Amino acid sequence: MNQDYIKADAWSIVEEGFDKERVKSSESLFSIGNGAMGQRANFEEHYSGETFQGSYIAGVYYPDKTRVGWWKNGYPEYFAKVLNAPNWIGIDVFVNGEQLDLNTCKAVKNFKRELNMREGWYQRSFVAQMANGIELQVKTTRFLSLDLDELGVIAYEVAPVNLDCQIKFVPYLDSGITNEDSNWDDKFWNTTKLDVIGNQAFIEAHTMKTNFATCTFMEAQAAYNGNSVNSKTGTINETYASIEFEQEVAKGEKITLTKLGGYTVSRNHDKTQLVNVAKKVLKQGSDLGFEALLAKQKEAWAKIWEMSDITIAGDIKAQQGIRFNIFQLNQTYLGRDSRLNIGPKGFTGEKYGGSTYWDTEAYCLPFYMATKNQEVAWNLLEYRYNHLEKAIENAEKLGFTNGAALYPMVTMNGEECHNEWEITFEEIHRNGAISFAIFNYHRFTGDYSYIPKMGLEVLIGIARFWHQRVNFSEDKQRYVMLGVTGPNEYENNVNNNWYTNYLAKWCMDYALEQIEVVEKEYPQDYRRIQAKTKITTEETSDWAKVADQMYFPYAEKHQVFLQQDGFLDKDLVQVSELDKSERPINQKWSWDRILRSPYIKQADVLQGFYFFEDHFSQEALEKHFDFYEPFTVHESSLSPCVHSIQAAKLGRMEQAYTFYLRTSRLDLDDYNKEVEEGLHITSMAGTWMSIVEGFGGMRITDGQLSFNPQIPEQWDSYAFKINYRNQIVTISVSKTRSVFELTGDTDLKIQVNGKPVTLVPGEKIEG
Amino acid sequence: MNQDYIKADAWSIVEEGFDKERVKSSESLFSIGNGAMGQRANFEEHYSGETFQGSYIAGVYYPDKTRVGWWKNGYPEYFAKVLNAPNWIGIDVFVNGEQLDLNTCKAVKNFKRELNMREGWYQRSFVAQMANGIELQVKTTRFLSLDLDELGVIAYEVAPVNLDCQIKFVPYLDSGITNEDSNWDDKFWNTTKLDVIGNQAFIEAHTMKTNFATCTFMEAQAAYNGNSVNSKTGTINETYASIEFEQEVAKGEKITLTKLGGYTVSRNHDKTQLVNVAKKVLKQGSDLGFEALLAKQKEAWAKIWEMSDITIAGDIKAQQGIRFNIFQLNQTYLGRDSRLNIGPKGFTGEKYGGSTYWDTEAYCLPFYMATKNQEVAWNLLEYRYNHLEKAIENAEKLGFTNGAALYPMVTMNGEECHNEWEITFEEIHRNGAISFAIFNYHRFTGDYSYIPKMGLEVLIGIARFWHQRVNFSEDKQRYVMLGVTGPNEYENNVNNNWYTNYLAKWCMDYALEQIEVVEKEYPQDYRRIQAKTKITTEETSDWAKVADQMYFPYAEKHQVFLQQDGFLDKDLVQVSELDKSERPINQKWSWDRILRSPYIKQADVLQGFYFFEDHFSQEALEKHFDFYEPFTVHESSLSPCVHSIQAAKLGRMEQAYTFYLRTSRLDLDDYNKEVEEGLHITSMAGTWMSIVEGFGGMRITDGQLSFNPQIPEQWDSYAFKINYRNQIVTISVSKTRSVFELTGDTDLKIQVNGKPVTLVPGEKIEG
Repeated sequence: MNQDYIKADAWSIVEEGFDKERVKSSESLFSIGNGAMGQRANFEEHYSGETFQGSYIAGVYYPDKTRVGWWKNGYPEYFAKVLNAPNWIGIDVFVNGEQLDLNTCKAVKNFKRELNMREGWYQRSFVAQMANGIELQVKTTRFLSLDLDELGVIAYEVAPVNLDCQIKFVPYLDSGITNEDSNWDDKFWNTTKLDVIGNQAFIEAHTMKTNFATCTFMEAQAAYNGNSVNSKTGTINETYASIEFEQEVAKGEKITLTKLGGYTVSRNHDKTQLVNVAKKVLKQGSDLGFEALLAKQKEAWAKIWEMSDITIAGDIKAQQGIRFNIFQLNQTYLGRDSRLNIGPKGFTGEKYGGSTYWDTEAYCLPFYMATKNQEVAWNLLEYRYNHLEKAIENAEKLGFTNGAALYPMVTMNGEECHNEWEITFEEIHRNGAISFAIFNYHRFTGDYSYIPKMGLEVLIGIARFWHQRVNFSEDKQRYVMLGVTGPNEYENNVNNNWYTNYLAKWCMDYALEQIEVVEKEYPQDYRRIQAKTKITTEETSDWAKVADQMYFPYAEKHQVFLQQDGFLDKDLVQVSELDKSERPINQKWSWDRILRSPYIKQADVLQGFYFFEDHFSQEALEKHFDFYEPFTVHESSLSPCVHSIQAAKLGRMEQAYTFYLRTSRLDLDDYNKEVEEGLHITSMAGTWMSIVEGFGGMRITDGQLSFNPQIPEQWDSYAFKINYRNQIVTISVSKTRSVFELTGDTDLKIQVNGKPVTLVPGEKIEG
Repeated sequence: MNQDYIKADAWSIVEEGFDKERVKSSESLFSIGNGAMGQRANFEEHYSGETFQGSYIAGVYYPDKTRVGWWKNGYPEYFAKVLNAPNWIGIDVFVNGEQLDLNTCKAVKNFKRELNMREGWYQRSFVAQMANGIELQVKTTRFLSLDLDELGVIAYEVAPVNLDCQIKFVPYLDSGITNEDSNWDDKFWNTTKLDVIGNQAFIEAHTMKTNFATCTFMEAQAAYNGNSVNSKTGTINETYASIEFEQEVAKGEKITLTKLGGYTVSRNHDKTQLVNVAKKVLKQGSDLGFEALLAKQKEAWAKIWEMSDITIAGDIKAQQGIRFNIFQLNQTYLGRDSRLNIGPKGFTGEKYGGSTYWDTEAYCLPFYMATKNQEVAWNLLEYRYNHLEKAIENAEKLGFTNGAALYPMVTMNGEECHNEWEITFEEIHRNGAISFAIFNYHRFTGDYSYIPKMGLEVLIGIARFWHQRVNFSEDKQRYVMLGVTGPNEYENNVNNNWYTNYLAKWCMDYALEQIEVVEKEYPQDYRRIQAKTKITTEETSDWAKVADQMYFPYAEKHQVFLQQDGFLDKDLVQVSELDKSERPINQKWSWDRILRSPYIKQADVLQGFYFFEDHFSQEALEKHFDFYEPFTVHESSLSPCVHSIQAAKLGRMEQAYTFYLRTSRLDLDDYNKEVEEGLHITSMAGTWMSIVEGFGGMRITDGQLSFNPQIPEQWDSYAFKINYRNQIVTISVSKTRSVFELTGDTDLKIQVNGKPVTLVPGEKIEG
């Protein structure tokens, strides 16, 4: 953890001073993205020091061959992974023939990075002392356009400080790149064509196996003293194309290289038209020019913030933290394309392979539902509907039949991308989160249409899976579920994980209810679904039987549901009694010791109490929270938020705030000393939930939006907005009061602290 | 399974006809070894078809870097694996310049292999039709000397059948070899020196990292018409050295190349003297010559058979099977060197990495105790004593303290070589088998001296491990053992595996008893051990408490101990009800389904009933056998033998015989279609046990040797010998009677069918 690394600032991420040890971490933190592509904050100019080069195109993946120690039947032979894409940002700089390289130059002064979150751009500036004696002032500004989402923009300014000199810019494209995260050192890209035409260049390359065709393109212009500098074609080889600009530059004067670049991809265009489309994109970009593009960028981000900003007064670091979280979520996923999803590392790294975990349904959906238009959440649901066939295939590989669907633990294209048996085969609760998201979408938006159109088929496939996954225990005279891994991945292959059992029962019950609704109210859809799924009343009555007779491990003595069978046999020493030198246990203990211990990585039973809050009394929540939280080590980025929300609900604001701190600046302060691998994108939605659902106490209660606002002692006030059924509710909470304001057309009945309040458009109402 | 592959023969393994598809399988089946080295039955001459080249030197291993999918704390970073050694057997053959290659020649006729088990040699003969029209009769005989165990011998005879021709022999050494089983394609050998001196050649090479220095050597002589053929130095490069012999050979005449070769190793000699020692070995070998070496080989094997042969009348395939098992065990391990052990694949392949599993203590020790002099079993025990420090280190890595010892799942040098968490960290019952072997050695030999000298320290380290590995369950008010994998590896990470709990309790009890004995009867040893281990009465009384209060899962309804907590929750469908198309489940089912199922890979609860037979009544054995066997799929080569012994004990000879069949010809008939990877050496000891302990009913009962002989209906008679406390007991069993004969000096009181019988040296007594 490094609290002084990033300067406190309400709207920007700022780093001052050049530290080679931090280059990789900053490459993660200053990453930019526009939903369609994204990149780590790699330097444009050559850098010979430690760096993790990464540019990523949404939805472009590679099926790398699985490599595991010992093979188990059912493992995916290949799995899709995030793929480093050709580099379009590169600009080599030569000063009197000497190459600019921050790793080798004599000194780097006034080094500063700024990621301006309000306006959506990234800037880096420094003075480099070259070996040849020249001092060079450099400032480079970069952004990925939200409007033209195939286009990125760089303005690279160089000014010699002390001497006249010759400056050479070599902007280039490079498809000869590698992946950090490769199993067999396979080649992932095949470059088929390179072209340099005047000040533009194009590289056509396709991914091996998946055959995504891409055109990586650029256009470069250099300007000096208001005149454009002549370009010439530079080096061209099999995977590299460059353009060169040379200019004598007087001391104190500035030369600027403007580089437009990006990708066109066969996911969105005809394969044969990629270069033509690229040319059109470049024309649009250069017609507008840097300043107009930047102005549009600011506008687009202003719109996003308009809807999703959270303000916090009296705690600048908390303010910066929550904005960083909201900013990164929006950089990663804008919800325009139902083929895309929210990778755990977004566009900031490669770890974890695929792009979609249950994080999307359990953690991200609430954020996107409340801060975007409704179709964004719809798209996230549709993503899973589109993968239903693959989920059925996946279940078949494991021996399930009759259309049972098991969604993968992590995926790109619907296929499983994970290959630890205890996860792939056993962490099946992920399946339930998908049904829950359908319920949650309907609960929040009031829009039922997804269910007859798509959702019911998903619910049926998932219910079938659970129905087949349990077996009847003669001994217990109940249905049991053996060999699972719950959300607490510090337990593997356990029997009757309460959370999974409960979720399974709920999924079957919920599917049964929706079948009834659709049959009655959408008879045409029902006929289509019935014909497709061959669902029978015999089958559904079997589900009902299983759901009714599901086994739930319970400890009478403690009056809590047990995380799994046998939990009480553990050596129940609470986390607070562990020596600090033993933490985090995932670094200090052998796996064997972790598994035997009572320690919980992230909410497990409590995840169930979070999802199904209404099924349990406040007293039961308190009992379970007090039983399980003391064993919880929170060694997952997804852990603190659920606990923060529950602590707030129990009125324990000090504890809630402590949990909040652990999530909101996880990456900025590099708590886990791993930010160089990329950011924890999905858990950022949990940070948002901690404020909105935790401190703000937002719920849907009896079909109404409701709030129970509280405020941490450390803050003066905070405010957030909710897009509730196409109207905007703004909630401002101070130490003394909560004020609600409705933007929309129609009065809205809500509840505040359990009392009915009617919001009237344009009026501020105290709750 | 292929029952016609190997011809039925009482003393030989015979293959007739050349089938390219079977080359790799036969390379395994016709492997030869002499305890110090061994090799697959690779062709001497070049073969361009599918082959698995393997020559292995006992005790020479390589610490390959572990590669797993996802790392867990505590995994061994490196693990030692069986290492393919430089090739000394190669003899390239050219006929009028055309290279002999069975993969490409026009036809191969009269191809035959014979492995003569009685005499310990391997022969291959064939007629090759060359592309150039020449028909070549080839016969090659090879053996690895038991007397001079650094020396191997080849006589390679060639005779043109139809035309005179020029024959060129190119015998060579080659250290440019690879491992089939390499994680990172590392280079394992570094060749430092090559030398060709006349008709001898030497390659000095050492293994990377472990730095075992070796000299691979050869001497070649060719003879034609009673004259020796001149040799000249052939090709020499960095890792290859050859000698060449050219001779015009008349049709019908024979030219013979005699090649001596082998290894001298720094394990046994000074590094600087390896070539000198090799020269001495070659001199001894060439002074004797091929015929005398072969005669000595026959003598040496005759001595082995004298002691260990089992004869079966009336079932030629059973006869061949049991001899193959005994032969391979002797090829693998002769017990001369306490630094060596019995690898699961012996010298026949590389699978499974290291050389020592719990197979040694649980399955192989009884064979070696009963068929060899006592020091062989002592050496097997001493091997573990020598690894005690490493076992303590291994436990420390997992967080254990105070001298607790965890022996590795598989090892070469005492370090763990396995890296599945569910095995490495959890299949800890292996530890108990080591204590049991100490008990078993004393029980069988009557020799207590190992315990005060070495064994007690091992027993203490193991007892300490168990004592720390359990925890007290407040819920059960008993000590429980969480997160283990039993012998049935189709269950992982279970709680309270009965076998492991029972073994742990026994280990503590047994260690406590031996501490008392040693303290009383070997006070000097006790003081040394006490000073070294710092054992206190406080500690031992803690063990006693844990042992007394150990938890054993029990099912009142079935009156059986449960394999583990929750076993009765499974869907208890017996194996007989499974469709044949679903077998073997380890090939047909996903791992997930296997884990949830009740199916048992090999004896688990019943392994405990095997080890601790005397602790349970015949009635209890029957109940447990009838409960568990129907769920057992026997998908481990170690499974049928224990069940065969128990079925015999229960008087179910038909079932016992069925189990016996599954183990005795497992490799010869290639039941599992994997013999090409190597033989199942350790399970061969189980085959021996099936006859001796199963059919013969051999036990030590109340400190006396005892028998309960039975005979399978399919056999006319059988006979075996037991080296019991330095006297030989021969047992011959027919359908009508059992005859016992003692070779030794002293009368021996034994029990036969529960009745006392006194054997008198030299007399045949009917039991």
